[in-house]
Amino acid sequence: MSLTRTRARRATINDVADAAGLSRGTVSRVMNGEKYVSDEAKQAVEEAIARVGYVRNNAARNLVTQESRAIGLIIHEPHSLLFEDPNIGSILLGANEVLSKADYQLVSLIIDSDRDSRRVADYLRGGLVDGAVIISARASDPIAAAIADIGLPAAFVGHPEGTPALPYAAIDNVEAARSITKRLLETGREQVGMIASALDRDSGKDRLAGFRAAMGDRFDPNLVVEYPLYTYAAGLEGMQELLRRAPHLDGVFAASDAVAAGAMTALQEAGRRVPEDVGIVGFDDSSWALRCRPQLSTVRQPADLLGSTAAELVLAQLQGLPGAPRVLETTIMWRGSA
Amino acid sequence: MSLTRTRARRATINDVADAAGLSRGTVSRVMNGEKYVSDEAKQAVEEAIARVGYVRNNAARNLVTQESRAIGLIIHEPHSLLFEDPNIGSILLGANEVLSKADYQLVSLIIDSDRDSRRVADYLRGGLVDGAVIISARASDPIAAAIADIGLPAAFVGHPEGTPALPYAAIDNVEAARSITKRLLETGREQVGMIASALDRDSGKDRLAGFRAAMGDRFDPNLVVEYPLYTYAAGLEGMQELLRRAPHLDGVFAASDAVAAGAMTALQEAGRRVPEDVGIVGFDDSSWALRCRPQLSTVRQPADLLGSTAAELVLAQLQGLPGAPRVLETTIMWRGSA
Repeated sequence: MSLTRTRARRATINDVADAAGLSRGTVSRVMNGEKYVSDEAKQAVEEAIARVGYVRNNAARNLVTQESRAIGLIIHEPHSLLFEDPNIGSILLGANEVLSKADYQLVSLIIDSDRDSRRVADYLRGGLVDGAVIISARASDPIAAAIADIGLPAAFVGHPEGTPALPYAAIDNVEAARSITKRLLETGREQVGMIASALDRDSGKDRLAGFRAAMGDRFDPNLVVEYPLYTYAAGLEGMQELLRRAPHLDGVFAASDAVAAGAMTALQEAGRRVPEDVGIVGFDDSSWALRCRPQLSTVRQPADLLGSTAAELVLAQLQGLPGAPRVLETTIMWRGSA
Repeated sequence: MSLTRTRARRATINDVADAAGLSRGTVSRVMNGEKYVSDEAKQAVEEAIARVGYVRNNAARNLVTQESRAIGLIIHEPHSLLFEDPNIGSILLGANEVLSKADYQLVSLIIDSDRDSRRVADYLRGGLVDGAVIISARASDPIAAAIADIGLPAAFVGHPEGTPALPYAAIDNVEAARSITKRLLETGREQVGMIASALDRDSGKDRLAGFRAAMGDRFDPNLVVEYPLYTYAAGLEGMQELLRRAPHLDGVFAASDAVAAGAMTALQEAGRRVPEDVGIVGFDDSSWALRCRPQLSTVRQPADLLGSTAAELVLAQLQGLPGAPRVLETTIMWRGSA
């Protein structure tokens, strides 16, 4: 029996065997409730379990039920930007609410590198989650392919191209972007640009396509600047660049509210009044929108509902039901910025 | 044998038994490498495993190694506010970097309700993580007590009162708050207030104590307003309230940068110039600080280093080493807001 065992190490079945003075095999037979085990052995094992503080873990449970009662939320974001996008928080909140009611634990797994991708794929293969919700996936996402390969019940938030045929909860980014750009044009703007972001994702690509559709013949590729991520910094730099290219620009569609907030700061620093000189619209209706001065006209996407719907799609699969893709409604929130 | 098995459900040991035409017990004996199993049975099981796509899961591995190779990051925040505090992202980034190098998967578990607390405690007892980093814990945190009870290797970021004697990585919030308040007073401010937050946590309580220490005889309880969370909204409301109580207030210490950003908006909307009429300082040096106009004078806390240090304290315990508490340095970043 080890007397040097520190509190920090969890007691194992071997510690129980040592403490009970029995073989590991006998302890295991007692724990598995097998027949032909003496009452003395049972009692010795029970006492030893209490003495060493052994915690029977899910590993044992899993062998029978194959369940962990945990669902992974797989987030593709550079860690450093993760917390700049309030949508992710809302999606997480929505997914957690549904899973919590069904008594599943949500575990968030963040992917920021190829190394993370490989490790998360191993983790998923390891049976430590029963299903997964995948958010902000890129086209041809390797984790999504691994999930399809394992056959893990899963659903996307969004609908990236080149990914396996998993169910998804999404919005129509093309139509929503077309619609808010059209509304911006109706305020009488003559020269309208776009700060596009995340063109490697369905959301970023589709918002640019919607802008282009609304602009029609007036679309000018020189008035579109592109950034890899939906960030305040992208908006700040993007707006400065647009003003260099077109000093008389009077309208801007920013690909997200964080981007719009950065753009608004750049406009104000350049002495442009919003909305008098330049009208600006965003996308998301996240907490950024109400923090802007003036408050931002934007597209509200139901981020919490996207999360809860994707979680429901995973739970349905766990019950052997098919999960049909669902496209949710968006709304234009018209405020003071345009 | 089930022909209707959908791709979404993972193959179980029962599927292998069906496909091999053997009993579950025999399949289990083959998988566990026991003696006295015929070569025919071994071959049939191997072929069946390949055919049904069975993935041997960690559950089985755990029985031997008692390891999941996963570390939980336990975050106590209302989900809806989770992504408003950029410190959490930085802590997560720092912890992940250390754990990733050691080939551990970081899994984030968010606690927002008593129900979450109980479920997370069950999850931790279940052996699905090998250790835990606990951030933004309240005093007398139940999860911390559960972790100590299980004997799971764990460390705090911060050092809440009334919690078990786990190692921690922390900063000296009292000294840092005292120091930046003193610096604010040195700019000649006569009437200085504080927007305090999160007084149920060590960080919130200690920042108020530091403010009080710096103010000395000039401390006026009427010039301290208190809010439950470190939010932009708390800053906005708190500043409006302070201006009602003391229209000639010329200095403010906001308990975090998000709070300071909200306060700055309220000051500007009330027609006060920053820093001419009112000097304002924050705490964190998060992304909020550089987004403010003027940029915010604040305390830089090394959030990523807090995360990586706490992760190292957990890894040390996994190797049977004691983890000694570590207090990290802070720096005053003096910018345009005061």
